[in-house]
Amino acid sequence: MYVAIAGASGYTGLELLRILENYQGIKINQVTSRQYAGRALKDVFPVFNKSKNQNLVFSQELDFKSSDIYFLCLPHDASLEVAKQLYDNGKTVIDLSAAYRIKDSKIYPNYYNFEHKFEDLLSKAVYGLPEVYRESIKSAKLIANPGCYPTATILGLYPILKNNLIEENSIIIVNALSGISGAGRHLKEDFMYPEGYSNVYAYNLTKHRHTPEMEDVVKNITGKNISIRFTPHIIPISRGMLSTITVEVDISKKDLKDLYYQTYKDEYFIRLQERPSRIKEVIGTNFCDIYVDYDEKNKMAVITSAIDNLSKGASSQAVQNMNILLGKPENYCLQHLPLFP
Amino acid sequence: MYVAIAGASGYTGLELLRILENYQGIKINQVTSRQYAGRALKDVFPVFNKSKNQNLVFSQELDFKSSDIYFLCLPHDASLEVAKQLYDNGKTVIDLSAAYRIKDSKIYPNYYNFEHKFEDLLSKAVYGLPEVYRESIKSAKLIANPGCYPTATILGLYPILKNNLIEENSIIIVNALSGISGAGRHLKEDFMYPEGYSNVYAYNLTKHRHTPEMEDVVKNITGKNISIRFTPHIIPISRGMLSTITVEVDISKKDLKDLYYQTYKDEYFIRLQERPSRIKEVIGTNFCDIYVDYDEKNKMAVITSAIDNLSKGASSQAVQNMNILLGKPENYCLQHLPLFP
Amino acid sequence: MYVAIAGASGYTGLELLRILENYQGIKINQVTSRQYAGRALKDVFPVFNKSKNQNLVFSQELDFKSSDIYFLCLPHDASLEVAKQLYDNGKTVIDLSAAYRIKDSKIYPNYYNFEHKFEDLLSKAVYGLPEVYRESIKSAKLIANPGCYPTATILGLYPILKNNLIEENSIIIVNALSGISGAGRHLKEDFMYPEGYSNVYAYNLTKHRHTPEMEDVVKNITGKNISIRFTPHIIPISRGMLSTITVEVDISKKDLKDLYYQTYKDEYFIRLQERPSRIKEVIGTNFCDIYVDYDEKNKMAVITSAIDNLSKGASSQAVQNMNILLGKPENYCLQHLPLFP
Amino acid sequence: MYVAIAGASGYTGLELLRILENYQGIKINQVTSRQYAGRALKDVFPVFNKSKNQNLVFSQELDFKSSDIYFLCLPHDASLEVAKQLYDNGKTVIDLSAAYRIKDSKIYPNYYNFEHKFEDLLSKAVYGLPEVYRESIKSAKLIANPGCYPTATILGLYPILKNNLIEENSIIIVNALSGISGAGRHLKEDFMYPEGYSNVYAYNLTKHRHTPEMEDVVKNITGKNISIRFTPHIIPISRGMLSTITVEVDISKKDLKDLYYQTYKDEYFIRLQERPSRIKEVIGTNFCDIYVDYDEKNKMAVITSAIDNLSKGASSQAVQNMNILLGKPENYCLQHLPLFP
Repeated sequence: MYVAIAGASGYTGLELLRILENYQGIKINQVTSRQYAGRALKDVFPVFNKSKNQNLVFSQELDFKSSDIYFLCLPHDASLEVAKQLYDNGKTVIDLSAAYRIKDSKIYPNYYNFEHKFEDLLSKAVYGLPEVYRESIKSAKLIANPGCYPTATILGLYPILKNNLIEENSIIIVNALSGISGAGRHLKEDFMYPEGYSNVYAYNLTKHRHTPEMEDVVKNITGKNISIRFTPHIIPISRGMLSTITVEVDISKKDLKDLYYQTYKDEYFIRLQERPSRIKEVIGTNFCDIYVDYDEKNKMAVITSAIDNLSKGASSQAVQNMNILLGKPENYCLQHLPLFP
Repeated sequence: MYVAIAGASGYTGLELLRILENYQGIKINQVTSRQYAGRALKDVFPVFNKSKNQNLVFSQELDFKSSDIYFLCLPHDASLEVAKQLYDNGKTVIDLSAAYRIKDSKIYPNYYNFEHKFEDLLSKAVYGLPEVYRESIKSAKLIANPGCYPTATILGLYPILKNNLIEENSIIIVNALSGISGAGRHLKEDFMYPEGYSNVYAYNLTKHRHTPEMEDVVKNITGKNISIRFTPHIIPISRGMLSTITVEVDISKKDLKDLYYQTYKDEYFIRLQERPSRIKEVIGTNFCDIYVDYDEKNKMAVITSAIDNLSKGASSQAVQNMNILLGKPENYCLQHLPLFP
Repeated sequence: MYVAIAGASGYTGLELLRILENYQGIKINQVTSRQYAGRALKDVFPVFNKSKNQNLVFSQELDFKSSDIYFLCLPHDASLEVAKQLYDNGKTVIDLSAAYRIKDSKIYPNYYNFEHKFEDLLSKAVYGLPEVYRESIKSAKLIANPGCYPTATILGLYPILKNNLIEENSIIIVNALSGISGAGRHLKEDFMYPEGYSNVYAYNLTKHRHTPEMEDVVKNITGKNISIRFTPHIIPISRGMLSTITVEVDISKKDLKDLYYQTYKDEYFIRLQERPSRIKEVIGTNFCDIYVDYDEKNKMAVITSAIDNLSKGASSQAVQNMNILLGKPENYCLQHLPLFP
Repeated sequence: MYVAIAGASGYTGLELLRILENYQGIKINQVTSRQYAGRALKDVFPVFNKSKNQNLVFSQELDFKSSDIYFLCLPHDASLEVAKQLYDNGKTVIDLSAAYRIKDSKIYPNYYNFEHKFEDLLSKAVYGLPEVYRESIKSAKLIANPGCYPTATILGLYPILKNNLIEENSIIIVNALSGISGAGRHLKEDFMYPEGYSNVYAYNLTKHRHTPEMEDVVKNITGKNISIRFTPHIIPISRGMLSTITVEVDISKKDLKDLYYQTYKDEYFIRLQERPSRIKEVIGTNFCDIYVDYDEKNKMAVITSAIDNLSKGASSQAVQNMNILLGKPENYCLQHLPLFP
C-alpha cells in the first residue's frame, strides 16, 4: 500500500510523517513541498534524523498515479482540484483541507473565496469524524478530515446533539483556545516567539471559517437550525486546543453525565474526565478529553473538550480514518500516552 | 504619610512594593509576613536589591497605630477582622481581599465559609472600581478593592450596563483566562512549572467566588437581576487575564462601538483597541484594554477585556484608589507602558 | 515477566509507566507511592485514563518477591537499602537513583550524606550507559541507571574519551541546562509556574552531585585524572537538557567530526546533527542529539549534547537497559519520533 | 532638546520609545521606519495606545538637522554612514549598531562584511559602557552602544580585568543564553512561536560577531591578548540574557568576592547577588545582576551575569548614556523594579 502526503512540509504533513513512522504495511512513496522540492526530509528537518523516511526527497509535483492513499495537506483551493482529480483516478483521498467538509456549498464563496465547482463530489465526500460518521467512513473514497475547532466542539456536544436536547434556533456559545501551531507554518510578526510570548487574544470574532462547518454538522445531526456563537483565541503554547461550550439544556446534572458516559462508553479516543479536561493531557495523542458539568441556576450545560489541534484536530484523526478504511483496529498506531509532565 | 502592607510577601503585596517604589510623599513603615517575619525584604526576595525598601524587615504582627493607610493582602477571613479594627481606629483601609466587596452579606457563608459579622461596616465600604465608583471612593475610609475577574468583566460590560441595555433575567456568558499568579503563592502540584507547562483548563465551573461579586455589582449598576454564567480557566503564563463576554443586546455595531468610546473617552486606564485586546499589552500596567464587536446574526455583543490580574486586577488598582483618596492625579506612578515584546 | 516500579508517582516513575504502555511480554504488577497509597493510577493522574494500567493501585510498601524486574525511582538512601535486599533475593534491579553509580565509594558521604555500606555490591553494579558499557549490561543483576547530566555529557565526550585525546589533569568545561522537571515533583516556591516563568539561572555552581559521577566515569574510560568544571542551569521548560562542552583537544576539525561519525555509526540513539543540537528535537524520546565543532583559534572542541532529562536521562534509558537484559532489540518500544513543532 | 530614533519599529527602537515615555525635558520629534512609513505609532503598535507619542508618524527618511540627539537602531552598514553624516553635522549620536564599537577596524570586513571607511571617526567613538568608560562618555559626540552579550560579559568580568588577574594568552570560557528577541524582528521559521517553544540550542559556535567585540574591550582594559571562547545559545523566553563565565584566576574565594563588592560599591545598576543571578529579576530594567563564585579545586572563578538584552543590553543602556551626556542622574527614568513574579 503506497501513501502520498501532499504538502508534507507544513505542520500537519510533518505530523503525519511522525505518526506513520511505525505504521506497518504502508510505504510513503511521495511527499511534496513547493518550498523544499529536491531536498531530503532529514536535511530540511533534522528532527527526522534516524526516521525510516529520513531520505525521502520532497518533490515539486504530486504524481496522481503512483500512490494508493493520498493525504492532502494543501491550501483549500488547491485541495479542491487535486481531490477531484485523484477521485476521478480512483484513488482514496483523505483531505485535511476544508474543500469538501461543508455540505452547504453556498458557504464556500463567502468563507473561502471560491465557488465550489464540484458539488457532486462534495455530496459524496464523508466528513471524517469517526465517533459520529464511522459507518460512512468505512466505504468512503474521499474523506473530508474535520477542522480542529469543529472536532473538539462537535465531540464535546455530540451526546446532546444526538439526543436532540437543544431547541431549534438556539444559540450555542463556544469559546475556544488554540496553540499557535494552528496558524500553520506561515511567517507573520504576530506568531514570532517574542510577540506570541505571554500573549493571549481572541481573533476572527464575527467571521471564522469553522463556524459554518460546525453549524453544518450540527444541522446534519439534529435536523435543526442551531447557531454557533464562536469566539476563538490564540494561547501561547505550540499545540493543544480547548473548546468550552455553554448551552441551554433542560436536564439534571446526573442525567447529563450519564448521557455522556453512555454515548461514549465504547469510544477509545474519548476520555471522559472527572475534573475539567486539560490540554496538556492530550498533546501528541488522538485523545479527546471531555468534561461535562451542569449549571443548575442557569440551566446550562458547560462542557470542556480538549484535543491536540495537529493530532485529533488534523493528522492523527486522518490516520484514525485510514485505519477504518483499511479495516485495522481504529487505534492502531495511536495508542501511546501523552508526555507528563 | 505612613503606609502599611499586611501580608506583604504574597504576590499582591510584593506588587504593591514594586509599584510604590517611586511614589513620593509616602513611607512604607511596616510590612507583615508570617512566613518571613524577622527577615529583610532583600534577603527573602533578592529582586528588591537596590530598592529603597530593601532593608525593610517583615514583622509578624500588624501595628494598628503607626501607619495612616493600610493595604490588606490577607486571607478573606483575616481581613474581615483587621479591616474592622483599623476602621475603628480611624485608619484608611484598602482591602485587597473580598471581605467587604459584596453588599449582599448572605453570600459570605455560602461562598467564603464565614458569616459576615460586620454588616454595618460592609454597607459603608466602597467598591474600589474607580471607573464606576470614583465619586464614592474620594471620601471612603474602607475601600474594597475588586477581584481580578470582576475588574476585567465589569469594565468590559460597563457601557452596556450603565445604559441598561440588558434585559432583566438575562444571562451574560463570561469565559475568562487567568495567568497562574492568580492562584497566589501557594504550593500545589498543579501550579508547579512542569505541570503548568503547556497546560490550560477550566476550573470551578459551577461555583466560583467571583460570580456573586460580579452579579452584585451588575445589580447595583442596573437595578436588575442578571445572571453571570462564568467559566474561568488557567493559562500557562505568569500574569495576565482576559475576559471574553458574550451578551445579547439589541443595537447596531456602530452604536455599540460609539457607546464604548463615549463612555470611556475620559478614562486614562481604559484603552479601547481596534483589534481584539491582547494580554501581553497590559502586563505590568494599570491599563484595561477593551475590544467590542457585534455579532449581527445572533444579536450578541462580544467583548474582550484584558488586564494584568496582579495590577489592575489587584495592586495597581489599589494604588489608583490611593491616588484618588490623596487627591493625586489618578495615574500618578501608573503611567508607564508595558514591555514589548 | 513481572515488573515493579518503586516510587511510581514521581516524574521518572510516571515516565516509565508511559513508556511501558505498549511493551509486550511484561506485566507491571506493583507500583508504590507513599503519598498516594491505596489510590488507583487513573484517579490520581487522569492522564492515564484509557491506559491498560489505569486501575493499578499504588501500594505503600514494595513486595520483594512478586516481581522479576524492579525499577527503583526512590531517594538515594532508600535505594541503597532496597537494591541490596532485592539483589540478595536474586531479583534484577534497575536503580534510577545514584546509590550504585559511583565506583569511588568515598564520594558518598561528602555528596550524598551517607556512608556506602555495600561496597561489594557497588563493585558489582553496572553503570547503565549502553553506548559505553553495553557488554557488561547484558549480564548485570544491578544496573545503576546514569544521572541525566552525566548521560548527556559523557555521550557528548565519549569519542574523545575513548580515543584518549584529553591530557591528564585537564579541565573539561561543562555548562548544562535542564528543564524544571529535573528537580522532581517537590513543592518549592522557586519551581512554581509564576516564579519559574521567564527565569533562568545557574545553581550548585561549586558542588553538584553529578560532578563526581562524571569524573568517575571519565576516569574509568580514560584511566586519567581529568576534572569536570560543571555549571548546571535551570531553564523554563518542563523537559529537556543540553550539555555544552568545551575541551582542549589537538586535532583538526575534519578528524574530530570523523571520529564522532565513526564512533557512533552503529548507535541508533545517537543522532549526530549537522547544526547545533536542539532540545525540542529529543523531547519524549531516547535520542541523544550531538553536534561537534572545533574552534581552531583556541584549539578547543565545542560539543552540544541534547537529551530529554526524564527519558534518555532517566526512564527511557532504563527501558533501553531492560531491552538489553531481556535480549530484545535495543530500541524496542523506543522508536517513535519527537513532536514537531 | 529634540530626539530622533532611526529604525524605531524594531525591538530596540520600540524599547527606547517605552523607556522615554516619562523622560522630562526631551521631545521625540522623528521616528523612522521603512516598513511602516506614513503610519502612526499607535496604529502599527496598539501597545502604544495612551502613550504621549501615540500619534507620532513613522517617516521614511531621517532628517539630519531637526533633532539634537540621534539614537540609531539601524543595520550596521547603514549606521556606519548615518553616524558619520550626523557627526559631521555636529549632532550627538548614540549608535546601537556595532559600526563604531570595535577599535581594531580590521575586524569589520571579516565579521561584518564591510570595510570600515571612517577610521578617524571610529577612533573618536566612545564605547558606551558607563561602568567602565563613564568619564569618556561625558564628553562624547558619538557613543557606540555596546552589544548585549559584551555588556553582560564585560560587566561580569570587569573587577577581574581591572585588577589584571588574568594571564596573557589565557582563554576565558563564556557560555551565554539569550531570549529570542535578541534576534530582532526578522521573520524566520526558527523564531516562530511553535518552533521556538521548548527549544534551546547553541548557534554561531565558532564565529559570532560579539567575540571580537569582547576581545577588543578586554584588550583595551588589560593591555593583554586574551581569548574569549564564546558559545551563545537561544532560550525560549522573549527577553533576558545570562552570561556564565569560567576563568582561571589565582585568588581566594573571599578576596574574589571582596573585589567585586569593592569595585561595584557605587554602581547603582550593578546588583551583586548572594545566590546565582536570575534572568527574571532584571527583565525590563537596566540592572545587571552578578553572582561570583570560586571553584577552589580547579582554581577558576565562575561568574553569572544577567541583563535584559533589549534594556541594559541595548536601549536602557543607551538612555543611561544619554543621562550622562545630559548631566542627569545616571539612573534618571531607569529606577523601576522588575515584575515579580
